[in-house]
Amino acid sequence: MSTRQAVMPVGLDDGRIRVVIERVTPAVDDGRFPIKRVLGDTIRVEADCLADGHDVVACVLLWRRAGAGAWSRTPMLPMGNDRWHASFSVDQLGGWEYTVSAWVDPFLSWRSDFRRRVDPDDVRMAALGGAALVQEAATRAGGGAEAGLLLAWADELAAAAVAGADVAELQRIGLDEARSRIAQGFPDLRHALVHRPGAAASYPVTVERVRARCSSWYEFFPRSAAGVPGRHGSFADCEAWLPYVQRMGFDVVYFPPIHPIGRVRRKGRNNTLDPRPDDVGSPWAVGAAEGGHDAILNELGTLADFQRLLQRAGEHGLEIALDIAFQCSPDHPWVRQHPEWFRRRADGSIQYAENPPKKYQDIYPFDFETPHWRALWQALVGVFEYWVAQGVRIFRVDNPHTKAFPFWEWAIARIRAHSPDVIFLSEAFTRPKVMHRLAKIGFSQSYTYFTWRNTKRELTAYFTELTQGPGREYFRPNAWPNTPDILPEALQFGGRAVFMSRVALAATLAASYGIYGPAFELLEHRALRAGGEEYLDSEKFELRSWARDSPESLADFIAVLNCARRDNPALQSDAGLHFLRIDNEQLIAYAKVSAERSNIVVCVVNLDPHHTQSGWLEIDPDAFGLEPQQAYQMHDLITGAHFLWSGARNYVSLDPARCPVHVMQLRARMRRENDFDYFL
Amino acid sequence: MSTRQAVMPVGLDDGRIRVVIERVTPAVDDGRFPIKRVLGDTIRVEADCLADGHDVVACVLLWRRAGAGAWSRTPMLPMGNDRWHASFSVDQLGGWEYTVSAWVDPFLSWRSDFRRRVDPDDVRMAALGGAALVQEAATRAGGGAEAGLLLAWADELAAAAVAGADVAELQRIGLDEARSRIAQGFPDLRHALVHRPGAAASYPVTVERVRARCSSWYEFFPRSAAGVPGRHGSFADCEAWLPYVQRMGFDVVYFPPIHPIGRVRRKGRNNTLDPRPDDVGSPWAVGAAEGGHDAILNELGTLADFQRLLQRAGEHGLEIALDIAFQCSPDHPWVRQHPEWFRRRADGSIQYAENPPKKYQDIYPFDFETPHWRALWQALVGVFEYWVAQGVRIFRVDNPHTKAFPFWEWAIARIRAHSPDVIFLSEAFTRPKVMHRLAKIGFSQSYTYFTWRNTKRELTAYFTELTQGPGREYFRPNAWPNTPDILPEALQFGGRAVFMSRVALAATLAASYGIYGPAFELLEHRALRAGGEEYLDSEKFELRSWARDSPESLADFIAVLNCARRDNPALQSDAGLHFLRIDNEQLIAYAKVSAERSNIVVCVVNLDPHHTQSGWLEIDPDAFGLEPQQAYQMHDLITGAHFLWSGARNYVSLDPARCPVHVMQLRARMRRENDFDYFL
Repeated sequence: MSTRQAVMPVGLDDGRIRVVIERVTPAVDDGRFPIKRVLGDTIRVEADCLADGHDVVACVLLWRRAGAGAWSRTPMLPMGNDRWHASFSVDQLGGWEYTVSAWVDPFLSWRSDFRRRVDPDDVRMAALGGAALVQEAATRAGGGAEAGLLLAWADELAAAAVAGADVAELQRIGLDEARSRIAQGFPDLRHALVHRPGAAASYPVTVERVRARCSSWYEFFPRSAAGVPGRHGSFADCEAWLPYVQRMGFDVVYFPPIHPIGRVRRKGRNNTLDPRPDDVGSPWAVGAAEGGHDAILNELGTLADFQRLLQRAGEHGLEIALDIAFQCSPDHPWVRQHPEWFRRRADGSIQYAENPPKKYQDIYPFDFETPHWRALWQALVGVFEYWVAQGVRIFRVDNPHTKAFPFWEWAIARIRAHSPDVIFLSEAFTRPKVMHRLAKIGFSQSYTYFTWRNTKRELTAYFTELTQGPGREYFRPNAWPNTPDILPEALQFGGRAVFMSRVALAATLAASYGIYGPAFELLEHRALRAGGEEYLDSEKFELRSWARDSPESLADFIAVLNCARRDNPALQSDAGLHFLRIDNEQLIAYAKVSAERSNIVVCVVNLDPHHTQSGWLEIDPDAFGLEPQQAYQMHDLITGAHFLWSGARNYVSLDPARCPVHVMQLRARMRRENDFDYFL
Repeated sequence: MSTRQAVMPVGLDDGRIRVVIERVTPAVDDGRFPIKRVLGDTIRVEADCLADGHDVVACVLLWRRAGAGAWSRTPMLPMGNDRWHASFSVDQLGGWEYTVSAWVDPFLSWRSDFRRRVDPDDVRMAALGGAALVQEAATRAGGGAEAGLLLAWADELAAAAVAGADVAELQRIGLDEARSRIAQGFPDLRHALVHRPGAAASYPVTVERVRARCSSWYEFFPRSAAGVPGRHGSFADCEAWLPYVQRMGFDVVYFPPIHPIGRVRRKGRNNTLDPRPDDVGSPWAVGAAEGGHDAILNELGTLADFQRLLQRAGEHGLEIALDIAFQCSPDHPWVRQHPEWFRRRADGSIQYAENPPKKYQDIYPFDFETPHWRALWQALVGVFEYWVAQGVRIFRVDNPHTKAFPFWEWAIARIRAHSPDVIFLSEAFTRPKVMHRLAKIGFSQSYTYFTWRNTKRELTAYFTELTQGPGREYFRPNAWPNTPDILPEALQFGGRAVFMSRVALAATLAASYGIYGPAFELLEHRALRAGGEEYLDSEKFELRSWARDSPESLADFIAVLNCARRDNPALQSDAGLHFLRIDNEQLIAYAKVSAERSNIVVCVVNLDPHHTQSGWLEIDPDAFGLEPQQAYQMHDLITGAHFLWSGARNYVSLDPARCPVHVMQLRARMRRENDFDYFL
């Protein structure tokens, strides 16, 4: 038998601590990782707090900025079944922490018993005991007015008991509400327990800005911004795109890597191995003689040009997100300066990226098992720090799942320590547990499998898991219908209706979403190879010029979607997603409900791009705060149409040739918990 | 921002440890409390083990006696989705522990890539790299035969590469299975992670004897054993009961407290406050002038008599369980010797037990907040130690929920440290989380709410929670249809059929159960008061003499139930319970399935004591290893009847006037996972 189990119970050095605290929520792996919240959020904490016997337990929520001096305290309220709750709000960016403290409260226990006593002798005796407890509270109160008041109360109660007052009189004095509340303010904490979760000293919270929870991304290649076939675009050209992106209602503009592009083993158009001299190469082959991750490709402009673009973007309500791809082209300066950061092949040459039998000879990955890992980590975090210093606050990180987890946990914490407003998007299209781990260790948002989830069953299962599974505390989905790497099969063959339904699904199912444009809004659907997902004539390997003013463009439709997102808090959070029953497998329906049901949006999407589909949609009026047979208005935010609905079942029909989606705001006289009626 | 988050990730001092380990199961509160198992059990451990990138991860299960030197190691096997499993068996009583170690394995990663390479130059280069890895493994293997073999293999592979061997030849040499397995035995563990759960250094296991998992209890009052009205029974009288209890098939005989009974404020018959001089008092009023918790009531006999009874019980295959009630009568010696272990009222008198307005003036509870708690704990654990020294190995603990949790965790661990065969049953009829906490901190078994769960819905919900909820790893139910404190309403009014159905439910739903007899088998159903649950003329306050040979007795029925329990492993475990659909609310049906489906018992109980009830029972033939339309035999272990069933739906009818239960063993030619047919 282990001696470990024969000593005092874990974490206790005083056996008189009778209270236990269990099952604190929210928590990620019992405090090993932070939960994620945004500025202004209220965090509701619950815990099981219990003790032996019938004594009364009291507990408080403790919370503070991470590591910052004294705890703030909020009394927790009982929910029944030994569960308690309290809430606090986070009003600054950065780390916060919370835990729970509980104790068996002698004064509250006395009070609970005293109320139920009936025998006069018993009540007098108990009154004397109570007076002693109040006296102790007075001592704990120190010398102030409250101490005096408590002392006087104790004297009054004791004197009445000694004088033989009757039960009613003694209970009137002893159970005095106002003075009891004062006494409760000075509890006997000698046997209080401050809960330490298994994995940490408290439960951590990462508080980010609201954009970490809700954002609309537009990706384009700056080098294609010139608008003239064959001319390399520049940051100056990008400035001209800002109004276009703003009109569509996006808030983040994301650029593929902007650094010098390797010349050694550069890839040609359509990913060929024999480039022409004027081929521009892949921006993800980072680095050339003129510089690496902290340099800018000459053709795009200077650092000053970039900073001017950042400023102009801000003036259009847009932020620029940079793509950080931690890998090197063979001519990246680090390859010469720090060969020790790379793995070697048996012949001494540096190991290029590979996934046999595939070879990526234009890319050298870093070796995260190098003995020089500390220097490598410093250099890599320095890349973020450099661009943060230039004013960038959002990073899309390329393939973070091929770099060591401990590096990311360290690097993200390090950046946030001085710049808690920096947002990191994880581009990890990989195994689910790897994606979750990256989210746990700090990435603000994550790419998802949405790109390949097409059917009602797939979408329902996936978004139920995302919004209700354990990941809801740390994994913030960012849904993309396409990326420069992925032209999904559905977009290749479904036509305009599929582009509409896919972007509408992304924009309404997830609080953050993005598109790679103008390929998306211009319905680009030509694949390099049948059965593949690569774009034909991909911008990854060549310049493109786009007919942004095409009458086919979905720009206006996307603008309407983003407008709906901006106007409806329900669409700005991943919480509050409820799938609805509709009796047609080609129609998917869901509601998004904001906190306190102040905003309800119902979406219906026709997943069949070729035929009108109709069905009966079921809602639970009670869950929406409606009376069973109440009439309510559904306002379609896409078409502007108004529908008068009532009760639980209503008819929906969507013609993909016109518009395959309803995004409807529910407008009704609502029943509120407090029975106060109002119009939404 | 907290500095905490800006340092190295938790638990890491080498950033090259790329592997992570998560979600290890089984575990109770991530290792804060032990899982419970019994001797001979196989423990299947699962964990998520993953790393960045495409390198191959290897992991092992580490396990050992708690704190005992070197870990045993078992390779874990992949289950898909980054989850791994391995098992170990526990062949000694006491504490065990396990955890998981994982690493990114360079040799396995090389092997995985090497198999997929196609380019001859590439394969030759990789062969040289592989030879170097094999050489490193040889170095780790030390100087033995395996080292020599590996060195030779490395040389062969390198020589072939240098000589320009073709791809097939290099892959034949490099992928050699036998030699690869040897190399795998000497892995590169420089960057291995040994998982430390949040709450502990490893995951603890408490291994008890099989009776902790499966036991049949018979409670009776030794003082009623004389069989002659008015004569006080003795341990010698109890000896004569042993064949009776044995014939019924029980394995534990449990006695209410056997200590001297307090005379001060002794309770009279039927819990009255004015006892007659010859009233015997409540055995739970422990202690009198002649002794306390380590003394025996004179009338029962001497310590020698008790030890003889223990021995005789053993000869009948029975164990004696003692009731430990940590409270004192006012004349318990400790009240005089250790007044500091009790709370005082305002007048200096010792505080009796109370739950206002109720008073229990014959009982003094201990004060677990006394400054002298250490001495109190020592004295209380000394009570267990004394009776353990006399040979007692099972304790039923009275009201453990009114004593401090830390005491129990410490005391049970302390007893188990020298006597790991001791079993503790928690008599905590209280709030669910308190009951669970007591189970977590060490009690082997727990009383349950079964006593008040009567309907199909109640029983289904409750036993589903018990057998499938988180408690399944630590909360072992012990189901009682009655106790000396509880004559449930159902037994008061339902007649013989309810006694039969209740004991059959207890004996088949739970692996451990018990009855308070002879009140139970003799159908005692008279309550002290209408609407109450106290027995009239309760043995708690007076002697009773029982007509054990009554023709009404259920002794034979109970014997058949216990025989079925003894013959069917499925009934000896709480795992493997599956409720079955049956289209009649008065019929409840369930299967118990042993590990590997080697034993299947199907029970059907008519919950209506007054009418025959019939219905169609549904089973899933596939889940039972049967072909869809296969015929199979159901052998009723109560009546001996045989039914030939087939397929998924079969008819059942139960007449409560005859027997309200089927306990049926399924006998069929089974389909096994390995397609080997056999007769059960």
